[in-house]
Amino acid sequence: MEQQDQHLLANDKKLNEKFLDDVFQILKKIILECKTGNGKVIDFKTPDQLIKEIDLTLPLKGQSDEEIINFIKLVDKYSVKTSHSHFFNNLFGGSNEYSLAGDYFTSTINGSMYTYEMAPVFNFMENAIQQLFAERYLKWSTIDGVFCPGGSQSNFYGILAARQHKYPEFKRKGLRALPDLKLFTSELAHYSIEKGAIMLGFGLDSVVKIACDEEGRMIPEEFEKEIQKCIQEGSVPLMVNLTCGTTVFGVVDPINKCTEIAQKYNMWVHIDGCWGGHLIFLEEFRNKYSLISQADSFAWDAHKLFNVPQQCTAFFTRHVGLLHEANALGSDYLFMKDKKLYDATKYDSGDKTYQCARHIDVFKFWIYWKHFGTLGLEQIVADSLETTKYFAQLVKDHPNCELINEPEYVSVSFFYYPDSFLKRKELGEDKTEKFWEDMHNIPPIIKAKMVEQGTMMVAYQKQNQKSIQRKNFFRFIFTADKGKEEAQFALNEIHRLGKDL
Amino acid sequence: MEQQDQHLLANDKKLNEKFLDDVFQILKKIILECKTGNGKVIDFKTPDQLIKEIDLTLPLKGQSDEEIINFIKLVDKYSVKTSHSHFFNNLFGGSNEYSLAGDYFTSTINGSMYTYEMAPVFNFMENAIQQLFAERYLKWSTIDGVFCPGGSQSNFYGILAARQHKYPEFKRKGLRALPDLKLFTSELAHYSIEKGAIMLGFGLDSVVKIACDEEGRMIPEEFEKEIQKCIQEGSVPLMVNLTCGTTVFGVVDPINKCTEIAQKYNMWVHIDGCWGGHLIFLEEFRNKYSLISQADSFAWDAHKLFNVPQQCTAFFTRHVGLLHEANALGSDYLFMKDKKLYDATKYDSGDKTYQCARHIDVFKFWIYWKHFGTLGLEQIVADSLETTKYFAQLVKDHPNCELINEPEYVSVSFFYYPDSFLKRKELGEDKTEKFWEDMHNIPPIIKAKMVEQGTMMVAYQKQNQKSIQRKNFFRFIFTADKGKEEAQFALNEIHRLGKDL
Repeated sequence: MEQQDQHLLANDKKLNEKFLDDVFQILKKIILECKTGNGKVIDFKTPDQLIKEIDLTLPLKGQSDEEIINFIKLVDKYSVKTSHSHFFNNLFGGSNEYSLAGDYFTSTINGSMYTYEMAPVFNFMENAIQQLFAERYLKWSTIDGVFCPGGSQSNFYGILAARQHKYPEFKRKGLRALPDLKLFTSELAHYSIEKGAIMLGFGLDSVVKIACDEEGRMIPEEFEKEIQKCIQEGSVPLMVNLTCGTTVFGVVDPINKCTEIAQKYNMWVHIDGCWGGHLIFLEEFRNKYSLISQADSFAWDAHKLFNVPQQCTAFFTRHVGLLHEANALGSDYLFMKDKKLYDATKYDSGDKTYQCARHIDVFKFWIYWKHFGTLGLEQIVADSLETTKYFAQLVKDHPNCELINEPEYVSVSFFYYPDSFLKRKELGEDKTEKFWEDMHNIPPIIKAKMVEQGTMMVAYQKQNQKSIQRKNFFRFIFTADKGKEEAQFALNEIHRLGKDL
Repeated sequence: MEQQDQHLLANDKKLNEKFLDDVFQILKKIILECKTGNGKVIDFKTPDQLIKEIDLTLPLKGQSDEEIINFIKLVDKYSVKTSHSHFFNNLFGGSNEYSLAGDYFTSTINGSMYTYEMAPVFNFMENAIQQLFAERYLKWSTIDGVFCPGGSQSNFYGILAARQHKYPEFKRKGLRALPDLKLFTSELAHYSIEKGAIMLGFGLDSVVKIACDEEGRMIPEEFEKEIQKCIQEGSVPLMVNLTCGTTVFGVVDPINKCTEIAQKYNMWVHIDGCWGGHLIFLEEFRNKYSLISQADSFAWDAHKLFNVPQQCTAFFTRHVGLLHEANALGSDYLFMKDKKLYDATKYDSGDKTYQCARHIDVFKFWIYWKHFGTLGLEQIVADSLETTKYFAQLVKDHPNCELINEPEYVSVSFFYYPDSFLKRKELGEDKTEKFWEDMHNIPPIIKAKMVEQGTMMVAYQKQNQKSIQRKNFFRFIFTADKGKEEAQFALNEIHRLGKDL
């Protein structure tokens, strides 16, 4: 125990430089391997295998630095490299030294966002980013908001703000005192609107899901029909969530038309831009969807297309002070107004959130932004779209593939037919249910192969819409770090693993 | 633009080792300065000053590495060092290489927790920690839970679980279909219960605040009276939140008595151990509050007393499957059940949360635990209590101080009387309102002085209870890194800054 006691001393003054240097070497290796696409994307073990390969128990007595370094290397071995250049699986990816530097830094100072006193620089940064978004991208004359832990939370803030805006008495009386409120969203919207409906006390029955067209966009006429039905039934249409970048196809709801309809019925317009909100960096997009300027709130995950580590999510609203009105309790021990050195009512942001302490998420994005510059960020979005178009063309040109729709953002969805299925198609079998039942199994099999070999990761899913049911297909994501080389590799790899099935 | 274009290449393969090494040097300097207590806790600038000292605009064109490194150094200069050995301000603090290593690592691999496939090792770690808590500390025979972003969220999960447990139909129908539910908590409980009541749709009127005794603990008789009143008024007592470590005094509600009362009325028992839950590492505490074994849920922030970077929060419940029942939507694109390589129904955890992607918070705590061992963690808690008692004794022995109550945890609250106030006390002025109005100003003035000089940070607050009103007093926090030397420094510093006021 003597050796251990040394660590336990509260005022141990040594810097364990050797240990830190060893850790930094591991980090550099991971960053480099991800950039170069060397090493496996995943060294997959089943739960039964994994538990044999790595000791996942916690020791009674402390372990040595050497044991810990070796353990970290083992965790590295069995962890998914989401930043690997052959990771096309989820809506994030890529690694860069700048945002990592920001993230390491905030972990080290271990700050929190709730008062100016605790995080003076970072509170200014949040405000500066909001102002820039308002002026350059959202075209709002006023802005308020908060960084929060993930896109789902940001959408929750949208629902919360809508509720508070229309029913200020809600904060005290709760939902039981309000009429039957309905939340509108498309059938292909992210499930966080439904999770939010549960979480926030509305219940799933309050969510009205609007049918989408074949491309996956909310149908405005269906939207208006559902509003009218809701009113006839004595309910109140509270808000609509418009998706900017659906989870699978990455398409954008008809924002202009739907906003006009929502405004006619005095509804809050929330835009879920968590995935596709990066499109707002492009002038052409802003011109096309000009009524974003009239949206009431906007959710955005900086960590999605850009290669900024999770989590880095913003919630923006045009309605200044509404978040504070919705959440503030004015707790004595934290948000005292008698601070001597600055105006706490103006600069302490914590009470406007439903969190208390808040992780500093803004800095990793700030450093990233400084490195690329505003024009650079805009270029990255344009480049990612360019790579996506290139990949979609490869898919269209490939005899074994069928593109499901032209990408509007950086998602590419397509069916892959192994050679034997091509033959069955020629015989007209693709008109039968059996053919599609068999096709449904293909992506899971190919995925299992690539995971076992660790060469690549990509998502597959089925998609059921009111008007159309689609069996399992692949969905590739082209985040900032993916180029034409990776795109070409990806399609070749699917074909290599799948053609003989 | 040529130089910039290079950065924008999606498949840029260089590792910017020079930049990373420069960052690592900055990190090491911060860690060392915090450990040794060199450098300022805070280099405070008012908002107007700060905006002149540091350029908080985002550039159109990207900046050079040198500019960025210099900028990070400037942010370092103006950021609060929560890990500094003279930081007694909030309920967290301290820095150590082990938990930082874990945090740097998870940022670098940029993973997410929602499926086994995405985070095999980390999902196992969350489960292992839960099991250990159940067996060794909570004395529960079953456990389920989730790591979530902060203590407030963890308390929200407690309310959510209580709601789902009693009213499974709630998920679909929402709160409007339920009777008038009441949430009970002490008047000194953390405000997250109230924020949760707003957030989750209950409204503030649903929160019943029970009076505390002079020490700050919920009075069981008052609790039962309020339940009976609630029932008489036709409402339903849904749950009680028992605080294990109140925010200011750090005392523990009478868990055994209150649990017995709550069970009599069929209420859910949630324990908010976010701050004081570390006490559960001590056998004596577990024996005293043995009915923790019958609590339905428990919230705990690993990042509070232990020097683990924020955020690292757990929510535990005895009711296996309840979180899944409450939150699951079975989204097709993420939680497919047709995975070939493992049993997704058993190992994918994402759908049981109301989040989607989840930051990997467990690893920084895991590495910390490996370094100290289970016995080491228990010792750290005991050591922190020891330092706290030492400081409380210093306060009691100091002529200018008045301890408010004997600490049960690592918080020490006391009034500080400048010399002139001691004289006024001798004249009996402390019976007058004027005296306490003047006393109320003393802590903000002393705090402003220490912040301006950057020597220390500590919290002050007033506290209004139903039975007693207290004007501003100091509250010191003794987290893992604080020893007797820091304790002695702290009291001397208050006296140095305050005695002549």
